[in-house]
Amino acid sequence: MQIFFSPFSPYVRKCLVTAHELGLSDRVQLLPSNANPVTRDQDIIAKNPLGKVPTFITDDGVVLYDSRVICEYLNEMGNGSLLPSGGAARWDALTLQALADGILDGALLARYEDVARPEALRWPEWRAAQLDKAQTSLAHLQAHPALLAPGRVDIGTLTVACALWYLDLRFPDFGWRERFAAVAAWYESFSQRPSLQASWALPPA
Amino acid sequence: MQIFFSPFSPYVRKCLVTAHELGLSDRVQLLPSNANPVTRDQDIIAKNPLGKVPTFITDDGVVLYDSRVICEYLNEMGNGSLLPSGGAARWDALTLQALADGILDGALLARYEDVARPEALRWPEWRAAQLDKAQTSLAHLQAHPALLAPGRVDIGTLTVACALWYLDLRFPDFGWRERFAAVAAWYESFSQRPSLQASWALPPA
Repeated sequence: MQIFFSPFSPYVRKCLVTAHELGLSDRVQLLPSNANPVTRDQDIIAKNPLGKVPTFITDDGVVLYDSRVICEYLNEMGNGSLLPSGGAARWDALTLQALADGILDGALLARYEDVARPEALRWPEWRAAQLDKAQTSLAHLQAHPALLAPGRVDIGTLTVACALWYLDLRFPDFGWRERFAAVAAWYESFSQRPSLQASWALPPA
Repeated sequence: MQIFFSPFSPYVRKCLVTAHELGLSDRVQLLPSNANPVTRDQDIIAKNPLGKVPTFITDDGVVLYDSRVICEYLNEMGNGSLLPSGGAARWDALTLQALADGILDGALLARYEDVARPEALRWPEWRAAQLDKAQTSLAHLQAHPALLAPGRVDIGTLTVACALWYLDLRFPDFGWRERFAAVAAWYESFSQRPSLQASWALPPA
């Protein structure tokens, strides 16, 4: 299995964390990429016309994307239970994943506003509204402790952890720990999981 | 069942088209919304902290989002086969859905650039790169006729149809039919399905 890799893509990280949880990390080869929101990577486009990471290639040569599809595939390959197979637990895990993906979508747009867009063309209200998705979402997690119950390990909680990792990486001044102590306490413990402590890098060329 | 409704959201439309295909349309009540990328809708946020449509409420009061989760739930409620239950057909349908969702993500960002962002702050290269995702994706569909094979009705093809509807709605000058005749021929036929001919509106207050 192969995946187009970018060290700072939270969606790539989500896939690799998922693979690690399932014991599949060693079977996933990292491929170099230059995904960029404006200068599009033609090597990725040749496999995935959206030109985005993560893009994944199975051992049979089938191309899968995006991170949700890849994670579900990995869960099946590893006979995992990170995506419950049905019923309320499945909708709960998938909706929590969607919440965390939504935090990331907003955070990435705020990041592009900060570093990709020419300075004269930046729109502070847009950036603020994108980051406010993280604010209201973390308030929701803080108010619903069952969502981050101790011992809950599924695609929802793993994606929340990836979202918090990305907020820390790109928005160190966001200061979410002070406002959402219960979420911070959960992350302090949950982020000790080996899958979240692992780091990945391309092998030398 | 209830869904926060916006007549021009392609993701809401995708959910309603899916419900129609499954014979569930009459059971889904439309709720008014004012989703906006900058001025966030607090009524939606009370249910879904991302503040986005579609947001869905089951008959048991469980809140589900986003469109992928809602469509999978509807498929289960309707005992449908719009999401194949496993194997290669499932990965194929889910990846085609991700392709079409990716076209829409880019098209929505281009749309926000055109109408939401103050004119002086617009970045033509960003807008072009977002719409280029549609260009390369339609080229991919044109080059892989099996993806839009006659008679194929699943969450992938339905989402492609919603993406093409949105391109026509917001970017009438995009001119994709001239460049991608096979995709145009497919859409001409596929869009005759009652689910895609249906239209939805909120009942009078």
